Amino acid sequence: MSNEVLAHADVRRDDVTAAAVWLRDRVVDTPLVRSATLDRIAGARLWLKAENLQIGGSYKFRGALRAVSQIAQRGEHRGVIAQSTGNHALAVAMAAEWYGLTATAVLPIDAPAAKVASIKDSGARVELAGTTVWRRLEVVDRLQAASGDAVLDAYDHPSVIAGQGSATWDLVEAVDRRGTSLDAVVVPVGGGGGVAGACLALEGRETAVYGVEPVGCDSLARSLDAGRRIAVPPAPTLADGLRPSLVGRLPFEILRTRVAGVVPVDDDDIGLAVCLALFHTKLLLEPSGAAGLAGALRLAASGSYTDIGVVLTGGNAEAGLIARLVAEYGATRAGSGGGGEKGRRA
Amino acid sequence: MSNEVLAHADVRRDDVTAAAVWLRDRVVDTPLVRSATLDRIAGARLWLKAENLQIGGSYKFRGALRAVSQIAQRGEHRGVIAQSTGNHALAVAMAAEWYGLTATAVLPIDAPAAKVASIKDSGARVELAGTTVWRRLEVVDRLQAASGDAVLDAYDHPSVIAGQGSATWDLVEAVDRRGTSLDAVVVPVGGGGGVAGACLALEGRETAVYGVEPVGCDSLARSLDAGRRIAVPPAPTLADGLRPSLVGRLPFEILRTRVAGVVPVDDDDIGLAVCLALFHTKLLLEPSGAAGLAGALRLAASGSYTDIGVVLTGGNAEAGLIARLVAEYGATRAGSGGGGEKGRRA
Repeated sequence: MSNEVLAHADVRRDDVTAAAVWLRDRVVDTPLVRSATLDRIAGARLWLKAENLQIGGSYKFRGALRAVSQIAQRGEHRGVIAQSTGNHALAVAMAAEWYGLTATAVLPIDAPAAKVASIKDSGARVELAGTTVWRRLEVVDRLQAASGDAVLDAYDHPSVIAGQGSATWDLVEAVDRRGTSLDAVVVPVGGGGGVAGACLALEGRETAVYGVEPVGCDSLARSLDAGRRIAVPPAPTLADGLRPSLVGRLPFEILRTRVAGVVPVDDDDIGLAVCLALFHTKLLLEPSGAAGLAGALRLAASGSYTDIGVVLTGGNAEAGLIARLVAEYGATRAGSGGGGEKGRRA
Repeated sequence: MSNEVLAHADVRRDDVTAAAVWLRDRVVDTPLVRSATLDRIAGARLWLKAENLQIGGSYKFRGALRAVSQIAQRGEHRGVIAQSTGNHALAVAMAAEWYGLTATAVLPIDAPAAKVASIKDSGARVELAGTTVWRRLEVVDRLQAASGDAVLDAYDHPSVIAGQGSATWDLVEAVDRRGTSLDAVVVPVGGGGGVAGACLALEGRETAVYGVEPVGCDSLARSLDAGRRIAVPPAPTLADGLRPSLVGRLPFEILRTRVAGVVPVDDDDIGLAVCLALFHTKLLLEPSGAAGLAGALRLAASGSYTDIGVVLTGGNAEAGLIARLVAEYGATRAGSGGGGEKGRRA
């Protein structure tokens, strides 16, 4: 199976910088956003990389485009297959469309309808399979055997990790240009590719890299404790994108020695973060995309960090969910944003 | 009264470019956002300037900062007074705080609570006065007589018009850099300063400038028809920022010969535009800030324009209103954004 092969493939800091340079003219140069109100709430300066404004609505497009372009260049496959909880598959489908390859997306049966619809819109075939990563991988293997298409793993592919890491690279570069050095960077953890890429991007710097996991979906935290990968049955969480049952092999190899820690967040933290981002930065985030902000607010409460970078990973949110979260968290706790962002200058 | 004096002051294209250059390192370089889905809905290419990400949550900060800095430089006043429906007063209050001046904001009694709270947060004094511009101007005059503070008119001040026009200037420059020339630019109309600034910014170009007014708040449209300024009693509209009873004197002098037309939009158009922007561009707009998008969609339906620029003027929305609009327009008509923005490359 492709995972076995790819787990031994290598990925380094240079791959992240090469991906960042290659992607520069191909993806959206998403803005660095600041909010005086959020800084006040956090008690630290937050530097927010708005990857919800990325093509496909999430930073996954970076890794997908990088990896799909390499597959297209080799010319050995007519199509690609990707399993994911949503955004990676959407990103792969869109990247495949750019390069004239067919795409097949294998998603959990409870994937958000909007993500499924968007993937179909980009011309990809969609297969729904169970709720665990193993069930999806089983379907991927069957499809690969039948079609000979390339499998583009969501977590264990070196180019995917390097591409996702370029979001952190770009964030750090943008903060550097403003004369500030980040003490910490926070990235949500699904399969761990994004935070592993962040660790590579920040190699050789003093910046601590933290993952964020929903309570009950803490495969990375448990794996770090155990010193080996631990699977966790998917628990209910607002953050549908952070439900993979098991952190990837290659990300775990990178993270086990380099990640500073994992911040747990619950649905309350996440719902509040969605509304704080919406009304104080004017950005729509999906719950998984707001998990980094939720984690940063918890991390800032420790008082150990002054300048914290956050990758706002995605914004593909369902209208019904947003209406519910805004009604629940918007008015009372997040404040309705009058826009008093007096210090915001990014 | 200050209006009388300022109505005869001059403002030209050079003032807009000077404001744009001066503001460059002082305000947020807001992104140019595109959405393949919105382009498909419009049947035209839309180039969206995300001024909801501006300091203070709206493009009003540009004009306020420019004007307040000049007042501070002259050193003749300890404070400034501004009347507005919300965002201009907030912008002036924040700009005054930067320059160490006191600020007094005169707002309608039904101004959104969040805007009032934000203005107070920035240290300004707030006076609530009636629902018409005349009632507010009466209070402004009384306050000015007592304090000797400078009055910073929301519509009739040359530097405010030039500063607001810099948003359109920056939009056009950014589209130029991408090798495209805009056929039309759309700006919402309150007192008309922003769209007058847009006309100045685009002087000498082939780009048609359109204003957008809510149905029943169409002072500019009626004034253009009549050849003189016509007051309109404030009608109910979602777009609280577009309710001034009368287009400004100086904006009207500019607009009467230069604006291509005024597009009327109703609450349905505006509510839908808020949700389309939210789910397809991931940007939170207040109803007044989404009116430009609503107008652009109507204008695009005429089939006369291929590339339409839109200033997304502000994002200071109330949580309760957003929850209601998303529930009403989000799921059924705007689609819940799966993020299938395949062509979005700004």
